[in-house]
Amino acid sequence: MKFEIMRQHLLDGLNDVMKAVSSKTTIPILTGIKLEVTEVGLRLTGSDSDITIQTFIKAEENGDQVIRVIEEGSIVVQARMFNEIIRKLPTSDVEIEVKENCHTYIRSGKSEFHIIGQEPSEYPLLPEIQDDRQFIIPADLLKSIVRETVFAVSSSESRPVLTGVHWQVKNGELVCVATDSHRLARRKVTLEQLPEGEYSVVIPGKSLNDLSKIIGDSSHPVHIAMTSQQVLFKTANVLFYSRLLEGNYPDTSRLIPTEYKTTVTMNGKALFHAIDRASLLAREERNNIVRLSSLEGNIVEISSSSPEIGEVEEEIQSTTFVGEEIKISFSAKYMMDALRALDGQDVTIQLAGAMRPFIINSIHDDAVLQLIVPVRTY
Amino acid sequence: MKFEIMRQHLLDGLNDVMKAVSSKTTIPILTGIKLEVTEVGLRLTGSDSDITIQTFIKAEENGDQVIRVIEEGSIVVQARMFNEIIRKLPTSDVEIEVKENCHTYIRSGKSEFHIIGQEPSEYPLLPEIQDDRQFIIPADLLKSIVRETVFAVSSSESRPVLTGVHWQVKNGELVCVATDSHRLARRKVTLEQLPEGEYSVVIPGKSLNDLSKIIGDSSHPVHIAMTSQQVLFKTANVLFYSRLLEGNYPDTSRLIPTEYKTTVTMNGKALFHAIDRASLLAREERNNIVRLSSLEGNIVEISSSSPEIGEVEEEIQSTTFVGEEIKISFSAKYMMDALRALDGQDVTIQLAGAMRPFIINSIHDDAVLQLIVPVRTY
Repeated sequence: MKFEIMRQHLLDGLNDVMKAVSSKTTIPILTGIKLEVTEVGLRLTGSDSDITIQTFIKAEENGDQVIRVIEEGSIVVQARMFNEIIRKLPTSDVEIEVKENCHTYIRSGKSEFHIIGQEPSEYPLLPEIQDDRQFIIPADLLKSIVRETVFAVSSSESRPVLTGVHWQVKNGELVCVATDSHRLARRKVTLEQLPEGEYSVVIPGKSLNDLSKIIGDSSHPVHIAMTSQQVLFKTANVLFYSRLLEGNYPDTSRLIPTEYKTTVTMNGKALFHAIDRASLLAREERNNIVRLSSLEGNIVEISSSSPEIGEVEEEIQSTTFVGEEIKISFSAKYMMDALRALDGQDVTIQLAGAMRPFIINSIHDDAVLQLIVPVRTY
Repeated sequence: MKFEIMRQHLLDGLNDVMKAVSSKTTIPILTGIKLEVTEVGLRLTGSDSDITIQTFIKAEENGDQVIRVIEEGSIVVQARMFNEIIRKLPTSDVEIEVKENCHTYIRSGKSEFHIIGQEPSEYPLLPEIQDDRQFIIPADLLKSIVRETVFAVSSSESRPVLTGVHWQVKNGELVCVATDSHRLARRKVTLEQLPEGEYSVVIPGKSLNDLSKIIGDSSHPVHIAMTSQQVLFKTANVLFYSRLLEGNYPDTSRLIPTEYKTTVTMNGKALFHAIDRASLLAREERNNIVRLSSLEGNIVEISSSSPEIGEVEEEIQSTTFVGEEIKISFSAKYMMDALRALDGQDVTIQLAGAMRPFIINSIHDDAVLQLIVPVRTY
């Protein structure tokens, strides 16, 4: 194997695949990345066995020669070191040559590295995923869906299936739900080109966070294909594979109340900052519980108190307040996460009493629904 | 105590004194900061008992009223929380009021915090430092001196005095020396307004790093006063106190060779980057040793090798090369630290043989001298 490549293109590709490489892997070859060069370009693969990222650098782009291939071939090199070497090379061009026994030479300017690679045949093969049951989501929408749901997955391994986000395709709609049983985030998306039939998979929260870092903010299409064990997200240059979580995801629809006693609309940002301030004292007690109470004149009071430290109170004028008076306590963190997912929009809060879960959504629609289970403090 | 203050001014002041507050202190009141308000302004004090930072916010600045004092007084409040509260308040003005038993109220817009402070009389007093033996260094020069020396202090507590930088004032010159016995950094400064007599103190490296973060990049004067146990750095608004290290600093002048066999001058940046690359492989072996060898035609080769991983070689054209051929091994980290302290200038390296310490300084002058003890590898 021997080729020359423009260093910046190699760095960009490495930047993507490095996100899949973990130093904590138990499979030694996965500390490496696989390079495969052919006449059409260079394919890089990185994996931690949960996710696999593959990127392709074309030999020619917009008429410019990015890669000059002298001899086709492949190699696995230690990922972290290879990445650092490429990053620190002195010129904008790199020559990579593999001689017998995986002896790998990296040259740039007057600098020459000689490292020992590993047999590419020892690198795990990618799962095969049929292309016939795909659907498409624009990259920026996909990022939003992840941002609006993934924070609510469980961080505890006691029910592994709750560490993932449940993606369900049904009746022309994609519904994504995450819950740790204390709060729930749900995002509904109406998709045009859905394939026949129903899908129901649970994607690890960590995979979705990693995916989110890879895909850009453009509206370019991301092709999504699912099997029973893997999901593949495909953009122009990057393939992102993730394993799926096994087990049945609980039916969460019954958690969401259908009748409410109080409906408040208010400025989402003002509420966020008031809760942030109230949680400054609440945090010290490690429970991080704040209180929301209705006062005269459609005013909502956010407060918290810690016997040892002090207390804080703040009034917010709600836009509308309909229904019974309310006094409810909840985790400041959950509320801030939910408001953050709603991206600072004005919100509607619907409550069914101090001990029932309550929901928050944008005043404009309920595409994003956030549910929080209150805490008993009275 | 009761006053109103423009929030940004309070934040700026807190930003300085917070640098002295440690959460790891064994003296509970030092987790707090002291506020003292009088008609002329607000004084803030933070300390971790090693260093103390005091800053003063004037009630009036450039004709603007920054503080409106309603009642003079003082209080100690928990530093981290107070800082966070002020940072997150909703408006640009803050009112602070202390009622009996240290009950402290912080108000801004419709937000009110009530926290329990501590008695200001319990806060340690500052050391008294005479003003009659001061000297002055411009802030930017002071920052350079710290940057050029402090990295070379010892991180081991086995000889505590080596964890500080030795400042010696003698014959109209300030000489600052740091060494961990494997390398040494020395900075000489000629000062105009030195007081009579000689000073010799050892300032903890950590204090100098903290100081460096406080003082700006301007050429404003910093007044320096020393006693046998404390040093005080004084700018327009900030007082920075540090304790001094006890014990005699070793005589380091004998470490520096007086005769050399080889003198090389070269581009400092090119050398830095070549060593940085060579150390990529050297680091893996945990010793981080690189080799410098002279080749034909005034060429210097930087190389390193690790049997398990591979090797790297790079040639640099030196500007001048006078004297015997050389082959010497040393810590890549020490060399990079030294070159960084020389700020990318072209350097002169003077060597007295493969087993003797060698020195590096700018080709322009020897105000900054860096010495490194080589490692035996042949």
